[in-house]
Amino acid sequence: MIISTQNPRIKHLLLLGQKSSQRRADGLFVVEGRREVEHCLGAGYTLRTAFVCEEIAGAPLSLPQGTEVVPVSPNVYERIAYRGSTEGIVAVVETRHLGLNDLKLSPSPLIVVLESVEKPGNLGAVLRSADAAGADAVIVCDPLTDLYNPNLIRSAVGALFTVPCVACTTEECIKFFKARGIKILTAQLQDSSLYYDTPMTGPTAIVMGTEATGLTEQWRQAADAHIRIPMLGRLDSLNVSVSAAILLFEAVRQRQIQ
Amino acid sequence: MIISTQNPRIKHLLLLGQKSSQRRADGLFVVEGRREVEHCLGAGYTLRTAFVCEEIAGAPLSLPQGTEVVPVSPNVYERIAYRGSTEGIVAVVETRHLGLNDLKLSPSPLIVVLESVEKPGNLGAVLRSADAAGADAVIVCDPLTDLYNPNLIRSAVGALFTVPCVACTTEECIKFFKARGIKILTAQLQDSSLYYDTPMTGPTAIVMGTEATGLTEQWRQAADAHIRIPMLGRLDSLNVSVSAAILLFEAVRQRQIQ
Repeated sequence: MIISTQNPRIKHLLLLGQKSSQRRADGLFVVEGRREVEHCLGAGYTLRTAFVCEEIAGAPLSLPQGTEVVPVSPNVYERIAYRGSTEGIVAVVETRHLGLNDLKLSPSPLIVVLESVEKPGNLGAVLRSADAAGADAVIVCDPLTDLYNPNLIRSAVGALFTVPCVACTTEECIKFFKARGIKILTAQLQDSSLYYDTPMTGPTAIVMGTEATGLTEQWRQAADAHIRIPMLGRLDSLNVSVSAAILLFEAVRQRQIQ
Repeated sequence: MIISTQNPRIKHLLLLGQKSSQRRADGLFVVEGRREVEHCLGAGYTLRTAFVCEEIAGAPLSLPQGTEVVPVSPNVYERIAYRGSTEGIVAVVETRHLGLNDLKLSPSPLIVVLESVEKPGNLGAVLRSADAAGADAVIVCDPLTDLYNPNLIRSAVGALFTVPCVACTTEECIKFFKARGIKILTAQLQDSSLYYDTPMTGPTAIVMGTEATGLTEQWRQAADAHIRIPMLGRLDSLNVSVSAAILLFEAVRQRQIQ
């Protein structure tokens, strides 16, 4: 059992949580919590190591054969866990990089594209909304994206493992949609229709920019339609995950009533 | 100019941010940032004191006559500001308690009710969505609510000052709705209709419980209709502010297309 927070393996685990460069170099990331680990395994990820504090975990965890289980003391667990303490497991998992051509899309796919991501927590929240709406995929067109950021994983509450998530360039993404007849709907204020007046029952990609700067010209020009959410208040702003949910569930509504 | 973080007025300011008991005792709360202060003034709140760091604020702020302006040094500002540092103003403002009978409702009001609030940041996010949807009010039925929590104010990005927000008991709230013919739609899974099959064009209150425990029996029984958002993914969960936005914007859609 590891009882020292200065143990090299614990230091490495903390580095994996803190630094995307470490995650990239090692091809590893960190998943905390029983439910998240279960979703992660369910999605076919490979667990390298499970750091388990039995005093906290209570009921034993069922992990795949071959998983290295490292018992840790409560003081070490407290150091490595971000959340309160009720779960007792922090796992090191092998990263996986999904490409556009790995996506298995339904006949009339519903996809969310984020052109870039201001905060990892926002992308996690978008994944959560995408899961609820039964979306086929979330695509991030931003070379800086690190899908394995701990804030992203936390705010996704498991959705990183239930919704396929691809990082690629804008060019690749537009080409992919055009080749497959997937309609591109860009969320933008200028020159746009109200979102609920826009058909979303066919193959649909909803494309959103950042809250601060909106979408680039490249996406605006590639669009089949420009859509906007009416802003009826005084602030003119919605969180990106909230906007994504409003647009996704309008697609759900149209698809279910048709 | 205050140049010491140990100055008693700075210590008091920090206490107001940290402790709801201090806010209650003094009838004061803290607002950070130029835009938030402007919305706060626009809503008719009274600024008691503005702590301003001129090096950071840049352009001068226009504050009402009689506002006490206290210059602070950059090191003090860094201690009292939560966000980066680009704004240069932290204000102490007098709290205000709105009751149900203070609400000025439109002829066909749209209201969000939260039965209780797990995290202040969630209530702030609901206020932001309510502002965007042009809702008449947000009502919180929870005696523990402190509307002036800094996390709430931050996540509301000004919406605490643009959307009337009332804290009251469930009994008071139900009585208020029944007396005014406002239809009560409770968000719940059991025994419910899909939200988009439910009319929301008349006077409507959308009532939501916590993510963890849902709504109490009292609300379920008072309801005119039970509504649910279909969960098409594998996680069965949406953030409360996201759910509120989906339901509010369905009301917006129905009201604009009718």
